[in-house]
Amino acid sequence: MVTEDTPANHTLKIYDRELDHLAEVIGRMGEMAENQLAGAVRALVERDPELGAQIAGNDAQVDALEFETHELVVRLLALRQPVARDLRTILAALRIASELERIADYAANVAKRAVALAHILAVEPIGGVQRMGRFAHAMIRDVLTSYQKRDLESAMAVWLRDKELDEMYTGVFRELLTYMMEDPRSIAPCAHLLFIARNLERVGDHVTNIAEALHFQIKGEPFREPRPKADVSAFTIVEPRV
Amino acid sequence: MVTEDTPANHTLKIYDRELDHLAEVIGRMGEMAENQLAGAVRALVERDPELGAQIAGNDAQVDALEFETHELVVRLLALRQPVARDLRTILAALRIASELERIADYAANVAKRAVALAHILAVEPIGGVQRMGRFAHAMIRDVLTSYQKRDLESAMAVWLRDKELDEMYTGVFRELLTYMMEDPRSIAPCAHLLFIARNLERVGDHVTNIAEALHFQIKGEPFREPRPKADVSAFTIVEPRV
Repeated sequence: MVTEDTPANHTLKIYDRELDHLAEVIGRMGEMAENQLAGAVRALVERDPELGAQIAGNDAQVDALEFETHELVVRLLALRQPVARDLRTILAALRIASELERIADYAANVAKRAVALAHILAVEPIGGVQRMGRFAHAMIRDVLTSYQKRDLESAMAVWLRDKELDEMYTGVFRELLTYMMEDPRSIAPCAHLLFIARNLERVGDHVTNIAEALHFQIKGEPFREPRPKADVSAFTIVEPRV
Repeated sequence: MVTEDTPANHTLKIYDRELDHLAEVIGRMGEMAENQLAGAVRALVERDPELGAQIAGNDAQVDALEFETHELVVRLLALRQPVARDLRTILAALRIASELERIADYAANVAKRAVALAHILAVEPIGGVQRMGRFAHAMIRDVLTSYQKRDLESAMAVWLRDKELDEMYTGVFRELLTYMMEDPRSIAPCAHLLFIARNLERVGDHVTNIAEALHFQIKGEPFREPRPKADVSAFTIVEPRV
């Protein structure tokens, strides 16, 4: 089909390009958030304070991309006055940018703690945290693929995986407390590890928010099912063995 | 001035009523978030597990108000196609609803931990956490007043106070670690207190986000100054005295 180059068509083409640009900025933000988390966990596992400091320093770039998204969204809403699916696509992008900014924020916090930990103890029980990091990273990667493909089914499959991350977190929380009880020298590093585990658990929550934003974009209504929560750590009581 | 009741005027009146309704829902959400936080801290201080469970159970009501805001915003954007200040007011409301939902979320988490703590130890060092709770609560209350009055100057004064909350948090973090090192029986309750303190510190961040959303609404551009961050706990190294 040959499309006539009328002024109306021209406006539509610019509009489409703007929507594509919005999706592209979200894609870049997603990639950055993903890399930030992977780098933060690597800095922790490899006890690499330089890498940790670098990851923490990168956070401003993610914030800048969120600003860019926000400006694009305001412009699109004001100039194009979108309705229906286009409106939902734009609002979902705004939401997803905010979720990615928070994921990157948690990654930066993990990176800062990795710097602190590299200076304290030689051996900490980081196996559980490392597994959580790998799991959370795969969740981000997969939900971003779902978003790019507008594939709600696979996004909902990622959404369901958050329960497993929560279970891992509850286990790590209990494990770390027992280490702290056994050796007072492990208290300071394990406190950092507790927060790192908590950050990774929160990353999972933001991934489920992204899946829910895609649900709204595609289905036109918010996703109302209660989260499959398995994080019971807030209620957890661990008694010392002594 | 007598306004003629033309169809155009009629539409404008409905539109104004919708904008008022949006502000009213945000007001209700703000009040709930504020009460949830105050209740959670009271449940902790008074060792009242019933109150804690009740606060945790209320969280669904805040979520419902966020859904309501979201639906209102989508309707307003689609039907009224607002521009300039109206558009910014609507987008700011969307952002603020999301911040309030997160504040309430942190309050619910504090409440759950208050339930756990009421069942563990008789005495914990909760003084610092209590002060943080009072401080965070005042910040929410004041930023909401600024929002209702569209008073940017007072909102920015609240924004600046976050630094003090961060400093309190860093102090509480160090204090709790020393308690944990002195007595292994305090490790489990103090781990909960660490997370409670962290939650309260995060509440302050969301309050600053609300102040920034009001800045965008009034000034038409995002607030770009770097946060006056004083939370250095992620870098903190505390060595045991033993």
